Amino acid sequence: MALSRAQGILDELKALFGPRALLSRPEREVYRYDAIREGATPLAVVLPESTAEVQALVRLSRRYRVPLVPRGAGSGLSGGAVPLGEALVVAFTRMDRLKVDPHTQTAWAEPGVTTARVSEAARPFGLFYPPDPASYRTSTLGGNLAENAGGPLCFKYGVTGDYVLELEWVDALGEVQRLGRDAYDLPGLLIGSEGTLGLIAGARLRLLPLPRHRATLMALFPGVEALAEAVSRAIALGAVPARLEFMDRSAVSAVEDYLGVGLPRDRALLLAETDGDDRELVEEELSLVERTALELGAEVRRARDEGEAEALWRARRAVSPALGRLRPKRLNEDIAVPRSALPRVVREIEALGRAYGLLVVQFGHIGDGNLHPNILFDPLRESEERAWELAHEIARVALRHGGVLSGEHGIGLMKRPFLEEALDPGTLTALRALKEALDPEGLLNPGKVLP
Amino acid sequence: MALSRAQGILDELKALFGPRALLSRPEREVYRYDAIREGATPLAVVLPESTAEVQALVRLSRRYRVPLVPRGAGSGLSGGAVPLGEALVVAFTRMDRLKVDPHTQTAWAEPGVTTARVSEAARPFGLFYPPDPASYRTSTLGGNLAENAGGPLCFKYGVTGDYVLELEWVDALGEVQRLGRDAYDLPGLLIGSEGTLGLIAGARLRLLPLPRHRATLMALFPGVEALAEAVSRAIALGAVPARLEFMDRSAVSAVEDYLGVGLPRDRALLLAETDGDDRELVEEELSLVERTALELGAEVRRARDEGEAEALWRARRAVSPALGRLRPKRLNEDIAVPRSALPRVVREIEALGRAYGLLVVQFGHIGDGNLHPNILFDPLRESEERAWELAHEIARVALRHGGVLSGEHGIGLMKRPFLEEALDPGTLTALRALKEALDPEGLLNPGKVLP
Repeated sequence: MALSRAQGILDELKALFGPRALLSRPEREVYRYDAIREGATPLAVVLPESTAEVQALVRLSRRYRVPLVPRGAGSGLSGGAVPLGEALVVAFTRMDRLKVDPHTQTAWAEPGVTTARVSEAARPFGLFYPPDPASYRTSTLGGNLAENAGGPLCFKYGVTGDYVLELEWVDALGEVQRLGRDAYDLPGLLIGSEGTLGLIAGARLRLLPLPRHRATLMALFPGVEALAEAVSRAIALGAVPARLEFMDRSAVSAVEDYLGVGLPRDRALLLAETDGDDRELVEEELSLVERTALELGAEVRRARDEGEAEALWRARRAVSPALGRLRPKRLNEDIAVPRSALPRVVREIEALGRAYGLLVVQFGHIGDGNLHPNILFDPLRESEERAWELAHEIARVALRHGGVLSGEHGIGLMKRPFLEEALDPGTLTALRALKEALDPEGLLNPGKVLP
Repeated sequence: MALSRAQGILDELKALFGPRALLSRPEREVYRYDAIREGATPLAVVLPESTAEVQALVRLSRRYRVPLVPRGAGSGLSGGAVPLGEALVVAFTRMDRLKVDPHTQTAWAEPGVTTARVSEAARPFGLFYPPDPASYRTSTLGGNLAENAGGPLCFKYGVTGDYVLELEWVDALGEVQRLGRDAYDLPGLLIGSEGTLGLIAGARLRLLPLPRHRATLMALFPGVEALAEAVSRAIALGAVPARLEFMDRSAVSAVEDYLGVGLPRDRALLLAETDGDDRELVEEELSLVERTALELGAEVRRARDEGEAEALWRARRAVSPALGRLRPKRLNEDIAVPRSALPRVVREIEALGRAYGLLVVQFGHIGDGNLHPNILFDPLRESEERAWELAHEIARVALRHGGVLSGEHGIGLMKRPFLEEALDPGTLTALRALKEALDPEGLLNPGKVLP
């Protein structure tokens, strides 16, 4: 970009936003990356406080032909919020108004509201908001909507988009749109589109009554194969656990290094939680999982109360920090495969890791076959290029077994090249036509989602 | 259309489809209307048996520039499947392959499968398919998908689109597309678009475990106001009934004329059903509804077994045929309003009916405020134009109280003129851009959805 043009937009931004809401040089370095990828230093970072300010930004972006990159908490795992080339980052963290309406069991939330806050605000009314990405204490709704985030609860309760009744967004022309899920489901198209079709400014969310009881168990299996088989059998018998998480031996070992709580390093770990309003039934449903786990040679630890349950869940939540200690960098894959294919998929990915001589750790939401193979590497000693090649191979394993490329993290930068293989050329053309129709100048988060 | 062009496409259709799958003159008259509207006699009706045959039809349609109108069972209530001008009707009833996979708790269904068949095929595996439009014994999945149909169960379980994991469709170029709900949610955009963006050729549906118990009650209230208040209170106390249906006095009276089962003609009627796996809890949840109903002056009849429950539900299912006996024609509205606004909305619509001197009957799914005001009239004695004016006024009542125009029947022809009032010009422009992007020649069900 010509310096004078960059200076022009910066001057206008200063007049409109700064210093209240315009970030200066050192601060904006922080906005180069999300939790997994690094991009370019943004030209500027703006923190709008209202929909009207978002409109002003879109209009400036059009006038100067500078792309906009929307951003929530930056906890994304696919590079969706990472700026490419010179761009304005629109950080939504200050748009965080939230209003729960217990009468209609809904909440109106701005994009900067953190995920956990919705359930916290709903709890006094006996309600909750189910989508629970692992980063739910820091991640924002805007980011969850942009990536259509899932989480452990999504096996039973569905993903972010399933809880959106109405969406407000600023379109590529700077106009405010507000639409429910009738007529053409344009809100549904915006959800998961990573800010490439419009900037989400608010959402009406559906809340559910809080289940009165929960029960949790941990089961340690000789291997992932037996674990996957046990899960399949329990589900076939009618169990619908609220959460079903697994970790392979490498993940268990990494967590044990980190927490030192006595987990056996040679076991694959399953965490299962059932919930509902009737205590007996909740326990009975968990017993289904326990019985099939025992049949398949697992050692089962059942939590006797909420405190013990919390202790069991600590292992799962420790995975991300634990992996950070093994190697300085990681590629976090997000694939979903038919549950029946899971044992084979896990085995093939393990073999690939050995063949590439790279450390691969696998965990995820086994209930819906959503797997997170992580490739860990040290860029000083190991080739990043080979890590990416391996990531590509892992994606191919998923596709070969009838799986898909994004379980819940979105496409972003990570999956973009793989999407070309996953989709028919005709389908890609249709997706591109949608982008062209809603963002004809291509200024909304360019370079994301579509290959 | 020039005769020679019409003859040209008919000759090609005969070569490709007839007489096996091409309907001749008298038969095609039946394909002029759905359950609510009449249109033009189609140029021809084709009953494809495979996705490849649908592709052939789209290509013919492009070559001859003859529009296509997709159609299921014709039980739609918004005119979505009604041909306008010269068009080919694509009747999907012969594409009715269905395969349930109990292991993944999914079903793959072609568009001609009737809604009820999915649950029937799933039942031996302890599974069911929740969306239950009133016409579910005859309506087809293709039509349900095109209209994103709801039903009584949708308060608890959600609508058709919530159960679609993957969609296959033939696009405007005649290419087959198949996509899950990742990347841009193009399947979600197709769902509810009434065949204006592509022709649905198959869907992978999510199934749920069958609840083990159900409980039903009928409550007779002095008026709709008390009924709506009782429902609001019960829901606020935590009841999530699977079905909550209401009928106003006119509807009750019409059903009593039809069935003669001793319903009091001066009462508004509520039917409530709770379901779940624990019998005690299911009964307890229904008792919440019963208590609030009694508090508000209702007389309550609680079913003691499945047989009695069936007898109670007969009244609700009789509404449509009962209304058909009162007047030869009807406009069936489909609005959704916030539950809290329901008493006022019902009262205002009653007053409008009186002011217009037309018979208006109201019933619907009160749990989510989905109301079906029906305007009944005799075109020989009453002005159809005035009935339409009244329909327009009723739509305005819904919008004024923060409601929307399509609860579950779709937009079709019925709601198209009203959509212009309901949406911002900017939002309409965005919806039109989507149509233009996916159907540039405008040959897919033209004249539907968008005003």
